[in-house]
This record gives sequence, structure tokens and C-alpha cells, in this order.
Amino acid sequence: MPTQHDAVEVILAKRDRQELTDSQIDWVIDAYTRGAVADEQMAALAMAILLNGMDRREIARWTAAMIASGERMDFSTLSRPTADKHSTGGVGDKITLPLAPLVAACGVAVPQLSGRGLGHTGGTLDKLESIPGWRAALSNEEMFAQLESVGAVICAAGDGLAPADKKLYALRDVTGTVEAIPLIASSIMSKKIAEGTGALVLDVKVGTGAFMKSVETARELAETMVALGKDAGVNTVALLTDMSTPLGLTAGNAIEVQESVDVLAGGGPADVVELTLALAREMLAGAGRDDVDPAEKLADGSAIDVWKQMIRAQDGDPDAALPVARESHVVTAPTSGVLTRLDAMAVGLAAWRLGAGRARKEDPVQAGAGVVWHARPGDEVTAGAPLFTLLTDDEHRFERALASLEGGYDIGTSYEPAPLVIDRIG
Amino acid sequence: MPTQHDAVEVILAKRDRQELTDSQIDWVIDAYTRGAVADEQMAALAMAILLNGMDRREIARWTAAMIASGERMDFSTLSRPTADKHSTGGVGDKITLPLAPLVAACGVAVPQLSGRGLGHTGGTLDKLESIPGWRAALSNEEMFAQLESVGAVICAAGDGLAPADKKLYALRDVTGTVEAIPLIASSIMSKKIAEGTGALVLDVKVGTGAFMKSVETARELAETMVALGKDAGVNTVALLTDMSTPLGLTAGNAIEVQESVDVLAGGGPADVVELTLALAREMLAGAGRDDVDPAEKLADGSAIDVWKQMIRAQDGDPDAALPVARESHVVTAPTSGVLTRLDAMAVGLAAWRLGAGRARKEDPVQAGAGVVWHARPGDEVTAGAPLFTLLTDDEHRFERALASLEGGYDIGTSYEPAPLVIDRIG
Repeated sequence: MPTQHDAVEVILAKRDRQELTDSQIDWVIDAYTRGAVADEQMAALAMAILLNGMDRREIARWTAAMIASGERMDFSTLSRPTADKHSTGGVGDKITLPLAPLVAACGVAVPQLSGRGLGHTGGTLDKLESIPGWRAALSNEEMFAQLESVGAVICAAGDGLAPADKKLYALRDVTGTVEAIPLIASSIMSKKIAEGTGALVLDVKVGTGAFMKSVETARELAETMVALGKDAGVNTVALLTDMSTPLGLTAGNAIEVQESVDVLAGGGPADVVELTLALAREMLAGAGRDDVDPAEKLADGSAIDVWKQMIRAQDGDPDAALPVARESHVVTAPTSGVLTRLDAMAVGLAAWRLGAGRARKEDPVQAGAGVVWHARPGDEVTAGAPLFTLLTDDEHRFERALASLEGGYDIGTSYEPAPLVIDRIG
Repeated sequence: MPTQHDAVEVILAKRDRQELTDSQIDWVIDAYTRGAVADEQMAALAMAILLNGMDRREIARWTAAMIASGERMDFSTLSRPTADKHSTGGVGDKITLPLAPLVAACGVAVPQLSGRGLGHTGGTLDKLESIPGWRAALSNEEMFAQLESVGAVICAAGDGLAPADKKLYALRDVTGTVEAIPLIASSIMSKKIAEGTGALVLDVKVGTGAFMKSVETARELAETMVALGKDAGVNTVALLTDMSTPLGLTAGNAIEVQESVDVLAGGGPADVVELTLALAREMLAGAGRDDVDPAEKLADGSAIDVWKQMIRAQDGDPDAALPVARESHVVTAPTSGVLTRLDAMAVGLAAWRLGAGRARKEDPVQAGAGVVWHARPGDEVTAGAPLFTLLTDDEHRFERALASLEGGYDIGTSYEPAPLVIDRIG
């Protein structure tokens, strides 16, 4: 039972730029979870935190208090080490799909608790749910058994994990308090630490299509999260990766599953392969298995074998045909030249407007909807040849999707490639 | 019907230090009043306003939007001009009680809509309710008729006046967002402008017992409110007055009524008389009646005649005995010398703890409770002679009241008097 405090006292302290005490933080998170601190009080506190900040100790305590609000999983009795990955979200970011079975094929278990998408970045569960029969909800016992037998699980996070974060995240979403590094870092890390993974790799996206628009703020977030993970005994590293250009050649649900299967089968777009391998190597190193080369597991078919087992274990049919959108519309290149820019936000918005994403939590998504682009920055394009294919079940959605692609790409003469992995923090 | 906006859009604008547009302000106040903007969203916005500020245009528009949320009174058909006073709240501040009938006796009508007290500063209605029979609630028609016949009304503000402010004030109280000058100024001025007074004098208190602890913030608040009043066509001036020392010799309910009657009868403490006359002169000047000397109306008995009519018109008996507390406790001076300091906050807290004030809106107050001090700064005191008399119906309240008086006064050798009226802004 934490010491008794008062909501207004805690709000005034942060409003007036004081550090919150451990006792104040423990109390306010517990009282908010219980409903003794009202939503309007937490909203005022969240805004004060956003504008006045929290130091490392406060963030660590805030994270610990959110973990303590719920259950904590423990995979220490598994026969192999565990490693997980978290991405801050990007356009065409299907990396979890090939990554989890690949790392499992290398002998490290991957307990990946994922979410659904909101806004222009897709959700991993939404993508997997385009596979006929696949189910996202597993009991803790099913998850544990699948980790032991298959080595990889991608499933929905249960309600028992960091319930304070669940409540606070929903509040931040409607009160303009999402973009606070202390709150973002503690939200992500409370779930990942409670999840009980031994090693963790953070893919912190930076660029027009990401939450973090500048390398500086992305680095600050990455450093904050790495420190939180290490303090909690989780072997944590972060990669800062580019999200000005969307990943791969697809943004949607079924079409991203197909691209992931292509990668697992030894093909797929070069950037998706590169990032999958880079993250796999970090996860393996974090779990003490850097003796294994993940590239070999893609080449020898063992990664796609684990994928099929993983999908089947959750009642999906990995060999079934994926859903296809009813309508399609092709955008052709207006001129010939080199594609010099493809804006991640423009593509993400187009896919979202086509029905691949949702505006409200309760909205459905279309399995077949999305955007396919036929060239990546640096590729030659020819006037009149297909540049984008837009996919949706509702013809009326094309107009707004096309509008969001306007100004979202440039065709010029020369292209200077930028690195996909910008920095490593660990 | 204001332009449609989105709560998060408005919050983000202020969070990111932008000016809110007129349209955003109109929408957010209207939507909050209707319940379309949730309490947690307004709380986040209030904190952003507190930390990032609003400029004069934003404050004026915010005030206008709060006025537009309810009804607006109109006294232009009265046979005499109107003037009102608002105090930001102090300890022992009973000035409204002698002031309203005094100004009415000078030929200017006073439509004083008052509130109840919360915390260490008492409420005007709480004080008047210690008079047997007196009622605070009047219909608009009763108020208008009494202004015409008696010239002075002190009554409860109806629910129809600036309902947005009523809702916002309750929210600010529990979310640590009271101390924002734009929100304080717009809260006070929206009610006073909606009330329809022709002239307005603001008594902005500064010092330990006041909301504003420094002359700088008090001046900023005063200047903001005077500008708002003038822009709305209300002849507005402000006096900055000292609230480091409590006013008069009493803090409570019935005991402050008695002190007010003493002033109306030509006696009473010098500081209460001084401030009552200073405010009366400003109100008369604002209403174009500076040809009348209010001191004469105290001396010739016409002010107390209006008081009795005003109390009777609201069913009170001005000649009835006032309630007396069941228990009393005398604090004697520990040494002889000159009282060099008497702290308004210490006295206010003691009166509050004795039962004169309330901790929650729904709490009752004790009519007889309070503190009487037998010396004011500059007065000689003698060791062993009474310094304070504490009054309450509940003996158990003495201990905490005594604790709040500890360190609340000094006895020394010499006292340098400070001015009661610090500045005038108009």
C-alpha cells in the first residue's frame, strides 16, 4: 500500500517544475489504476509532464509503477533464451513477421506481444489477421507452450500486463499528450519489461513517416528506453532507422504478409531483408547466440518452416490464398527519370485511407487494402509505366488516397542513397 | 453555430505555444459547455494555458465565449447607474457588506452577485447567511425590483450566468490549474460582464493571505482584467491592496457582519473604513457620481438605513441577535511590546479550522465561528492580555486552529506602517 498523497499535490509539483518523489509516483499510478485519481487529473499531470519533463529517476520509477499495476510474465524456465523487438511504428514496417520466426530458427525464443494499428502506421496483428483462421488471442499457457514447441509467438497483449499503461495510453490519445518522451518511453518499456523478455531490441524510427521526426528526439527516446531496460535487467539495445521512405514495396495487411513470406523464402525487397537481418543479429547477440548467422536460416528454409509452424499453432493456414482487394487503381509515372523521393507519410496516409488502417479503435480494417509501389528511391522509372497500385474494397476511397499521394514523390536525375540504419545505441 | 474543430487540435496548438484562433476558442468553450469536449481534454488544455499563457486577444475572446455560454443581464432600464466591486479574496474581507449599501445610499445601484467561500478566505454569502432569515437566492425579477427600490442587492449568482465558467472553475479546482492569470481573469470578468454592471472596481489583493503573493503578478492580473472590462464597455478600475495583514479585527461570519454594521453606524476599524471609502469613491466615479462624498453617508446614517432595507428585502432581520459560538478560547500576548506583524494566512487558516470556512463545496459553515484579534500591527500589547479570541461550536477544533496561529505574529519594538492601497490601475 503506497503512502497516501493527493492528486492536486502531485500535479502542482510537476506543474511547478519539481521532481516527483518515488512515493508520489507510486501513489499516483496506483490511484489512477484504481480510479481514485480522475481522468481529468491525470490529463493535467500528463500535460505538465509533457511540458516540464521528468528526469531518468522519475521515468524509471514511473515505469516500475506501471509494471507493478499488473502481472509480470516469466520465461526463465523455457529451454532457450528469449529476445524481443519493438518498433516505434512506421509505414510498410512488416519486419516483425519475418523476424520472429527467423530468430526462433536460430535458437532464441521470441515472445512478441503486439498491438493493432491506429492511424497511418499499420498494426502487426491486423496484418496477421489477413491469414485465414489465424487468431491473435492466446492464453498465457498457450503462449508458453508455443514458445517451447515453435520458438516464436506473435499474439495480442493480455489485459493483465501494465493495465495502468493501457488506461493512460487511451487518455493520452484524446488529450494531446502522446508526444512526451518520458510517457512514450515508460509506456513501451513497462509492457516489454512486464512481458519478461531476456533481451530487447528497439527499432526507433525517424523521419517523415515516423512518430519522431528528428534524429535528436529519436536518439533521446532511444537512450531513455535503453537505460530503462538495462536498469530492469533486460539486455536492451536500440537501432535508429530511417522512416522517411516506407519499408519494402507494400503498405497494407495481406500484401505485407506476402512480402514477409517472400523474405522468409529467401527473396523480398533488399531493405526489408537488410533490416530484418540487422535486428535479428542484435536479438541473437542480446540473447548470447551471436554464433548463429541468421542469413543462413533464410537461405536454408528453416526460417519459413518456423513461420508455417507459428501460423498453424495459432490456427492459421500458411498455405491458404490471402485476401485480395475488390478494386484496384494504377498510378503511372508522369515523367521518366530516377525516383528521388518517396514520402513515407504520404504512402501511409494513402494506405490508411484505402481501408488498411483505422481511424477509431473499434473500426474494422480491410485485409486486402493498401498501396504497392513499383519503384524505390534510386530506381529508374518510365513515363506511363505503373508507379503505384492502390487496392481497396470500396471504389470511393481512391480519390482521397490519390490526394494524399500528391506531392509524395519526386522524379529527378540523381539519387544519393541514405543509410537505413542511422545509429546504434546500447 | 461555431466552426467545427477538434479538441486534440486545440490542445496541441496551445501545447506547442501557438495562439488559439477566435474560432478555436469559440468552439472549445461551446463544446465544453455542451459536454462534447471531455473534462480530461479541458484539463489538458487548462494546464497548457497555465504553462504556455494566452495573449490579450486570446483572453478577451475566451472571456467573450464564456459570457456567450449563458444569459446576460441588462440594467440599462434602471433609474440610476450601476457599479459593482469584485475582490480576489482575502482574510477578514467583509468590505462588500458595508460597501454595497453605502454606494446605494450615494445614488448608484449595486448589483452584487457573490459566492460562497472555499478554503481560508470567507464567502460573502456565508457571512450574510448568519443573519436570521436572510436568503441568498433571488430570481432575476426580484433582483431587478430590489435594485430599483433599495439600490443594493447582494445575492447568489444564478446558474444561467457564464455556465462555462462554473464548469471550468470546478475542473480547475481539482486539476491544479487554478493559478493561471488568463483563466483567473476570464473567470472573474466573464461573470462581471455578464452581470451587466456599468462600472466595476476590482480589489486585487496581494500578500501572504491572498491568492497573489507578489505585487508583480497582482498587477498583471489587474491590468488583464481592466483591459477586459474596458474592451467590453464596462468602466473598470483596479486597486491593488495589501493582504499580508487581515482586514479589520474579525475573520468569520457573524462576527464580520457585526463589524460591518459597526462601520455602517459610523464606527468600526480604521482600515475597514478606509478601504470601504476608497472603493466607494472609485465606484461612484465609475458611475459618474463623484460629486457625492460617501463619508457623509456613513456619518448621517443613510448607509445603515439602506443596509437594513437590503437585509429586510431578502427576508433577513437586521435587528435580530447574531449567532454566537458555543465555545471560546483566549490567546494572551506572551510578552509586552508592539505588534509588528499579524499574518493574514495564519489568521485565515485558524478561522477556517474553527469552522468558519469549508474544505469541500458541500460542507456547512458555522455562523458563530472565527477569530477576533484584539490588536492590529502598530498597536501596543501587554504580556498576559488577550491577543486573540477563538470561537467555534466544537471544542476539538481549538488545537489545530492554535497550531495555525503559531508563528503568525511578532511582538517587537517598532512598526513601520505600510499603505493599505498599494496601487491603482485604470
